[in-house]
Amino acid sequence: MELLKELCQIHAPSGEEFRVRDFIIDYVNRNSEQWVQKPQMYYGNGYQDCLMLVFGEPRCGVMAHMDSVGFTAGYGNELIPIGSPAAGETAIIRNELNHTAEVYYDNLDKKWVLKDDLQLNPGSTWTWMPDFSIQDQMVQSPFLDNRLSIFILLELAHQLKDTVVALSTYEEMSNAGKAGFLAKTMYEQWQIDKMLIADITWVTDYVKAGRGAVISLRDVGIPRKVFRDKIVDMAKASGVPYQLEIEKAGGSDGTIIGASDYPVDWIFIGAPEINPHGAIEKVHQDDIESMLHIYKYLCNRL
Amino acid sequence: MELLKELCQIHAPSGEEFRVRDFIIDYVNRNSEQWVQKPQMYYGNGYQDCLMLVFGEPRCGVMAHMDSVGFTAGYGNELIPIGSPAAGETAIIRNELNHTAEVYYDNLDKKWVLKDDLQLNPGSTWTWMPDFSIQDQMVQSPFLDNRLSIFILLELAHQLKDTVVALSTYEEMSNAGKAGFLAKTMYEQWQIDKMLIADITWVTDYVKAGRGAVISLRDVGIPRKVFRDKIVDMAKASGVPYQLEIEKAGGSDGTIIGASDYPVDWIFIGAPEINPHGAIEKVHQDDIESMLHIYKYLCNRL
Amino acid sequence: MELLKELCQIHAPSGEEFRVRDFIIDYVNRNSEQWVQKPQMYYGNGYQDCLMLVFGEPRCGVMAHMDSVGFTAGYGNELIPIGSPAAGETAIIRNELNHTAEVYYDNLDKKWVLKDDLQLNPGSTWTWMPDFSIQDQMVQSPFLDNRLSIFILLELAHQLKDTVVALSTYEEMSNAGKAGFLAKTMYEQWQIDKMLIADITWVTDYVKAGRGAVISLRDVGIPRKVFRDKIVDMAKASGVPYQLEIEKAGGSDGTIIGASDYPVDWIFIGAPEINPHGAIEKVHQDDIESMLHIYKYLCNRL
Repeated sequence: MELLKELCQIHAPSGEEFRVRDFIIDYVNRNSEQWVQKPQMYYGNGYQDCLMLVFGEPRCGVMAHMDSVGFTAGYGNELIPIGSPAAGETAIIRNELNHTAEVYYDNLDKKWVLKDDLQLNPGSTWTWMPDFSIQDQMVQSPFLDNRLSIFILLELAHQLKDTVVALSTYEEMSNAGKAGFLAKTMYEQWQIDKMLIADITWVTDYVKAGRGAVISLRDVGIPRKVFRDKIVDMAKASGVPYQLEIEKAGGSDGTIIGASDYPVDWIFIGAPEINPHGAIEKVHQDDIESMLHIYKYLCNRL
Repeated sequence: MELLKELCQIHAPSGEEFRVRDFIIDYVNRNSEQWVQKPQMYYGNGYQDCLMLVFGEPRCGVMAHMDSVGFTAGYGNELIPIGSPAAGETAIIRNELNHTAEVYYDNLDKKWVLKDDLQLNPGSTWTWMPDFSIQDQMVQSPFLDNRLSIFILLELAHQLKDTVVALSTYEEMSNAGKAGFLAKTMYEQWQIDKMLIADITWVTDYVKAGRGAVISLRDVGIPRKVFRDKIVDMAKASGVPYQLEIEKAGGSDGTIIGASDYPVDWIFIGAPEINPHGAIEKVHQDDIESMLHIYKYLCNRL
Repeated sequence: MELLKELCQIHAPSGEEFRVRDFIIDYVNRNSEQWVQKPQMYYGNGYQDCLMLVFGEPRCGVMAHMDSVGFTAGYGNELIPIGSPAAGETAIIRNELNHTAEVYYDNLDKKWVLKDDLQLNPGSTWTWMPDFSIQDQMVQSPFLDNRLSIFILLELAHQLKDTVVALSTYEEMSNAGKAGFLAKTMYEQWQIDKMLIADITWVTDYVKAGRGAVISLRDVGIPRKVFRDKIVDMAKASGVPYQLEIEKAGGSDGTIIGASDYPVDWIFIGAPEINPHGAIEKVHQDDIESMLHIYKYLCNRL
């Protein structure tokens, strides 16, 4: 869990994913010597802030976004959302220099407002203050969406085979995500035509914390029935506990891949959380366990 | 009309177009021996559920979507729309196993609600109950949008030359459609840079049933003036009755092609219908006749 | 300024950019003999109404859209917006034949309405009546967005080196713009991975007329931090006066490039105007001067 905690401390709103990217590159460099397949890393020129870890001769892709929600400081201390930070009561935010500020949610104007007598630098970016803890069964922290998925993929990395792990950018900004660029690259380079979307979803009246990772049958996007049935059958065969989500709202990198110019199937699989995009998100440890085992099972079989 | 009736009986909401695809493949296999040009069929791996019928050495493309609106059953019998099924009063819906259920439209909550004391299987998909009839001049059925366009293209198939008929998926889900993938494929393989969108539009105060197929000068998208003027001139020269549509709302596969990364012109041409996306759609037989003759005229001349 | 005035007289709503394109082609043909690098022009078949001027061996791209907002006449004299013409009081509009009509803004229905007792031809397109003037420090005209950017690029053309000037279409129609097609073409042909968006933005409480061209740190889209920091540093080093914009709304061709399948960085740089998309837009002459010098500085250094 130390690794997850470290990941959750990185300031990386959409547009500044390079800090998570560099953390992962460093982690791979320091740890991959003994892995079953040492991944090739694709990044830098021609990749913007994206990163691909290519294990062996990939037949399957997993995509996880590196960015989080946050705020851009406008003029006059306006807090302009990056993505959709959740409503709340009060919270502490910090910037890349680790300066902090207290904010509260104005329920009338439906927006976060600065509490302190500060002058935020126009154009500076702010994210929730890191605050990682484990309380009973729940892991609590900002940015579990989506650092938890990255954590799980790094935990699995030592035994991954013939898989591309694609770390994407701008996912929190809906249609602006670079998932299409990554899908194009993987399809053209390795004919990857199926993509697991490793991301975090919502606890609801029907999807409960502790009952296993979620396979989403639909949100605003609908995966191709033939593919989603196959994945559900495989999950069933795996013996790992899981839940099915059927949602009318919400999207992911999968939405972009579905709408892309490439014939790539996708499905969303990830743990559900309480208070998504809030200053403290909470995920049940059993769901982390389940998510890890489902990915382990699927990546080596697709 | 027997062929149209059969097409209108297929359960194929967005994500399950493979059933219409397989019907068309079977139809072509059984009937194409005597056609002027026997089409090559592209489908399967690398095409998801899409299908292309390639006649001769294509210079012109026609696109028709295979999916229909419908519902995904959520938890607690929630009916989550697939695309935008029209409001109504009561209706019968069915699933892929031909189980049926009665539903009514809740005008307060603006949504369809289950009437029966049933438990819908979460994740199962539902479409309007088939109910094809001809009453006076009107052909009546669910899914005339867009099975009628497919019917017309199959009726024309025996005399089509040097044309690609591209059967698309996910059109009912707005920007999620795979029209971009098909446009890319056709542009790269055969340099197809003009696309007729064979789809069904609306009867309005100005576009009347029985006055001919509609050429749309705009909806939310605007075709390039040079191209739309050329098509209107050709339609005029054809002697076939037609109407012009000028709409502020509504989109089609053309919207996606317009926004795509490929320099492909598009224009929407199709019959207008009463009660679009409703449990019973109605199209005037003269407009079917007109649509058939316009496509016949244009496909061999573009 | 005579050149800007001429540009502002062209009727070119989205879909009819060919008239601006032809004007530019003609201008380049008549003037480029003595330019430092005579540009190659790409247009016509395979480019729709787009145009690229390629100077030398390009390493940097500048994109400027050619279309303006306007109206399509629907049935019954309905004025259907092309893009988002601003609200106002009364105005004169004209069509491609230079016929004119008086219109007023209906504040209740939030739309422009025909005043005259005329019958507009359904499908005809209308834009604001040309009305160019210079009053004190302000240049006033419809379509400064975006003819002013084109003017500036043509003024710079005689000394441009190793740059592509990409003239785009359909920008006023949000996601329908062909910026993605142009970005794809430039990336594939010349590996252009950075794009300056030459366009016009808004005067606000914080961005003032006369204080210099605007570099936008964000609008609905967010450029990659690494790239935007570099551009701001270069602007600082140039000594040219400029302002920073931080906006929550508004988009540009940059939004499309950000969401595209290509790893291309973008940033919006342009003069701010009063009454954007209105019948008379106003830009301060000092901001035109600033915009010209920033582009001159950046194009030869990126």
